[in-house]
Amino acid sequence: MHAYRTHTCGALREGDVGATVRLSGWIHRKRDHGGVLFIDLRDHYGITQIVAKADSEPLRALEALRLESVVTIDGTVVARGPEATNPKMATGTIEVVADSVTVQSIAAELPLPVAGEQEYPEDIRLRYRFLDLRRETLHANIVKRTKIISDMRRRMEGIGFTEYSTPILTASSPEGARDFLVPSRIHAGKFYALPQAPQQYKQLLMVAGFDRYFQIAPCFRDEDPRADRLPGEFYQLDLEMSFVTQEDVWNTMEPVIAQVFEQFADGKPVTPAGSFPRIPHAEAMLKYGSDKPDLRNPILISDVTEHFVESGFGIFASLVDSGSVIRAIPAPGAGAGSRKFFDDMNNWARGEGYSGLGYINIKDGVPGGPIAKNHGEERTAKLIEALGLGPNDGVFFAAGKESQAAKLAGLARIRVGEQLDLIDQNRFELCWIVDFPFYEYDEESKSIDFAHNPFSMPQGGLDALNNQDPLTINAYQYDMVCNGYEIASGSIRNQSPELMVKAFEKVGLSQQDVEDRFGGLYRAFQYGAPPHGGMAAGVDRIVMLLCGAQNLREITLFPMNQRAEDLLMGAPSAAEFKQLRELHVRVVEPQAKA
Amino acid sequence: MHAYRTHTCGALREGDVGATVRLSGWIHRKRDHGGVLFIDLRDHYGITQIVAKADSEPLRALEALRLESVVTIDGTVVARGPEATNPKMATGTIEVVADSVTVQSIAAELPLPVAGEQEYPEDIRLRYRFLDLRRETLHANIVKRTKIISDMRRRMEGIGFTEYSTPILTASSPEGARDFLVPSRIHAGKFYALPQAPQQYKQLLMVAGFDRYFQIAPCFRDEDPRADRLPGEFYQLDLEMSFVTQEDVWNTMEPVIAQVFEQFADGKPVTPAGSFPRIPHAEAMLKYGSDKPDLRNPILISDVTEHFVESGFGIFASLVDSGSVIRAIPAPGAGAGSRKFFDDMNNWARGEGYSGLGYINIKDGVPGGPIAKNHGEERTAKLIEALGLGPNDGVFFAAGKESQAAKLAGLARIRVGEQLDLIDQNRFELCWIVDFPFYEYDEESKSIDFAHNPFSMPQGGLDALNNQDPLTINAYQYDMVCNGYEIASGSIRNQSPELMVKAFEKVGLSQQDVEDRFGGLYRAFQYGAPPHGGMAAGVDRIVMLLCGAQNLREITLFPMNQRAEDLLMGAPSAAEFKQLRELHVRVVEPQAKA
Repeated sequence: MHAYRTHTCGALREGDVGATVRLSGWIHRKRDHGGVLFIDLRDHYGITQIVAKADSEPLRALEALRLESVVTIDGTVVARGPEATNPKMATGTIEVVADSVTVQSIAAELPLPVAGEQEYPEDIRLRYRFLDLRRETLHANIVKRTKIISDMRRRMEGIGFTEYSTPILTASSPEGARDFLVPSRIHAGKFYALPQAPQQYKQLLMVAGFDRYFQIAPCFRDEDPRADRLPGEFYQLDLEMSFVTQEDVWNTMEPVIAQVFEQFADGKPVTPAGSFPRIPHAEAMLKYGSDKPDLRNPILISDVTEHFVESGFGIFASLVDSGSVIRAIPAPGAGAGSRKFFDDMNNWARGEGYSGLGYINIKDGVPGGPIAKNHGEERTAKLIEALGLGPNDGVFFAAGKESQAAKLAGLARIRVGEQLDLIDQNRFELCWIVDFPFYEYDEESKSIDFAHNPFSMPQGGLDALNNQDPLTINAYQYDMVCNGYEIASGSIRNQSPELMVKAFEKVGLSQQDVEDRFGGLYRAFQYGAPPHGGMAAGVDRIVMLLCGAQNLREITLFPMNQRAEDLLMGAPSAAEFKQLRELHVRVVEPQAKA
Repeated sequence: MHAYRTHTCGALREGDVGATVRLSGWIHRKRDHGGVLFIDLRDHYGITQIVAKADSEPLRALEALRLESVVTIDGTVVARGPEATNPKMATGTIEVVADSVTVQSIAAELPLPVAGEQEYPEDIRLRYRFLDLRRETLHANIVKRTKIISDMRRRMEGIGFTEYSTPILTASSPEGARDFLVPSRIHAGKFYALPQAPQQYKQLLMVAGFDRYFQIAPCFRDEDPRADRLPGEFYQLDLEMSFVTQEDVWNTMEPVIAQVFEQFADGKPVTPAGSFPRIPHAEAMLKYGSDKPDLRNPILISDVTEHFVESGFGIFASLVDSGSVIRAIPAPGAGAGSRKFFDDMNNWARGEGYSGLGYINIKDGVPGGPIAKNHGEERTAKLIEALGLGPNDGVFFAAGKESQAAKLAGLARIRVGEQLDLIDQNRFELCWIVDFPFYEYDEESKSIDFAHNPFSMPQGGLDALNNQDPLTINAYQYDMVCNGYEIASGSIRNQSPELMVKAFEKVGLSQQDVEDRFGGLYRAFQYGAPPHGGMAAGVDRIVMLLCGAQNLREITLFPMNQRAEDLLMGAPSAAEFKQLRELHVRVVEPQAKA
């Protein structure tokens, strides 16, 4: 007989009744029933009920052990009988009567319970992550995560992609975030950087002729932690293709992502491959007030600026006069309810730093509120008709400079959708946002900068760069969005050295700057570069959506806390003087702030 | 028609004759045949011959382009005719007559030729790696590498293992090599370390109840570069299992590794799964003089110390008298050859720092050389008989303290095997080396240290630690060896906190030291730890063996050079002062050596 087990704790069935078996696992629960001890013995595969008879040797051994101790049980499989069968357990028709017990590892008093799912302070959970990971939901989330990643790999390989690992110790990459640096021992005063993304390497792979690359790629950004971003490392499903247009990338990846979602959505509806809406960025900003719209929300924003030219509602009229726009956010059915809903929305907008949200609340066909009053009856009726509002609908108005109004309208759309319970939580709505602007105007620096990826191909090419207002140039750049989250981003790349130099000129960088910063790639483009493009999908985000988790730590094995500390392993930690001397660096204590 | 291609350059066959096609690729070769231009157009998938007719527009366009420029060709598929068919090319029965050419990217003068396989200086190859990677052998090696890794993954998943990614930004791990450090921005004066291996994390996964873990794991060691070790990062097929004995690990992994070898050995024989010899470490050191024996070499070393007690060959007799051992290395058939072979071996041994290699050369049954002469005729005959030597064999003798003699004998065994051409290069011989010593005596520090993995379980457990000479304790520790290379290493782990403290005590570390250095793991073992074990296989080494490559750079996408520099990306490089200030470090210029 095997030293530790003949079966896992999830394996035994009614057909095994009578067998002599050996099981090993953790003591999950103990119940004393009139002198008989019942043990739920747990391993990765399941739970089996162990019975230790009254006054038996196994009972004495098991009674003395704390929960989570590890034991090996020799025993006999017996049927539970219909009244004691547990249909929720795969092993629920049987139990194992213990003949003997071998203790493998005695558990000390637990800092954190494993059985049950009660909330527990995060620092305890992270410090004792090995216990936390035994808990049912987190254990299942982690297993689901590994299955999702494995499924992504299988699908990518199935359509002719090859996984290449790109270097982790490399040079600084221009993704715009802060790099993690690694001091070089051999080259005093020099540093490696951990890759923010394998962007340049994957493009170099295309130039090297590899055609269809993918990688489940670890990426590193030294950013301040945020609720939806773990400090340190994250994973992307990164891919790149040669000799493709953006339609090729969309048509290739839409089935992959749709099928991954379908596979792991537990039956929830998913936008089918081939029917992802392709929404131009400008249209998304208008209709959803966001470049990552939640399409489960049925509300559509529209521009009603024209309606308020010379309106009796003076505030809007003068705003429009000075170049502002007015966006309407319908609130279906809200007119039937209390006016408090409208006032609360207005107050929320002010709390967010906006000047407020005007509204019209229609009750039984009668428009109410100050805007309706001042705008004029006929004009209000015309506006309501144009918006297609019903006799008990409401509508909010976001006014301001275009980008401001769009943003407020987008936030209001989300909030109205939530408050009116219009969002079906049990579905995954996927779409593409396309035609992103190539450049943007940075209000702070009063200059033009790349809106997204500087390596993207501008639509219109050299001609557009030479002859068009840069702020009107779009890029072959696209995002994939699910339920209001950006889950992937990509572009067709600019593989022409001439175009690259021209594109960077617009943001104030010279050819020399390009050579200095992106020398490898710029050099590569001189020696025969294929047209290429691709994208990168956020693995963690997709797993989080599919697990229904609210926090990245619930789908990550050994996450750092919000202070970027690994409480389990004790990282980061002080280094020995000898190590630092070898690395030619010295710690500079931060100066006390004045 | 697609913007870039209807077919890849490896796709067209005789059945496509007459089709109008579009191909894109690199100009691999150009040949001018009496005014007609033949182009080998290359992409990832293959090569297609393009014909540009005399005086045609395509001819003028193509003639002007340098090799490695990227073009799109519109044309018509025509049959080559039997006399022009190239059976070596998959597309060798057809060619494409070009109707038009679109230039996608013009190549500058090449620093490195792509067509052909001539040697080229390494710094050029690395600086222009994107060109180097287009070359046939390297391109094929990289593709084979990805296929091997994918195959490993598939096999591991097929036998119930799950791939978990462990953190890359973590704490220092005690693998004994130098860590790469990453300064923390948020915690002044503290550092993360890149993992030398996921050893502690994989053990924590077992304690967390995950049972069968594997990972194609990036590992990082800041070691001085060596011929068989790239600076920086390398990959392991890392795995761990719960509730297993070492036999379980062997029986699980032997088929995986054997099948990976069989799959990619191009028909060369591979030791079949189930028949890997399991050689105790002590036996390996005796018979092969090495813990990584090349079993393709038929030579077996034996101990002949007893034969030289009171021998007429005074040097050996007095060595034996003072506790040295004598090891015999047969050289089959060498006696028939020149005596120069024997003297050269002796000189080589001296060159390696040993006192020399004694020998007997038997010619037509007559033993020759000083040892035979002095040892005495009868004793020599007895020795030859004991060694089973034939009438024209030779034998070398390595004398010295046991470990020294074993080492010299091992080196001599390899050299004799090579010189006599006894090693079949076209096979893969795999074996396990088992029962490694747990501790070793460090001559330098005059103290006991762990021989290999401090986390391994000592055979005999607490009883052995308490009552046995530590240098006689073996561990449940094993290596897998192929053709003289260690390709994997593993052990059953010590999961008892009490045993762990006791094991570290022997090397002079206290319980507090254990808690300080391996706190996460030590803490985990207090709360129910399953018996567990595993191993890690060197992916790069296995790929190198299967590609028949002589250098890790020939199987690595973007390797660093021997000075740990990435010449393509320019890493490592100077950091900006602002970056370093944020990271609370300052560069210390190395002081001039006195």
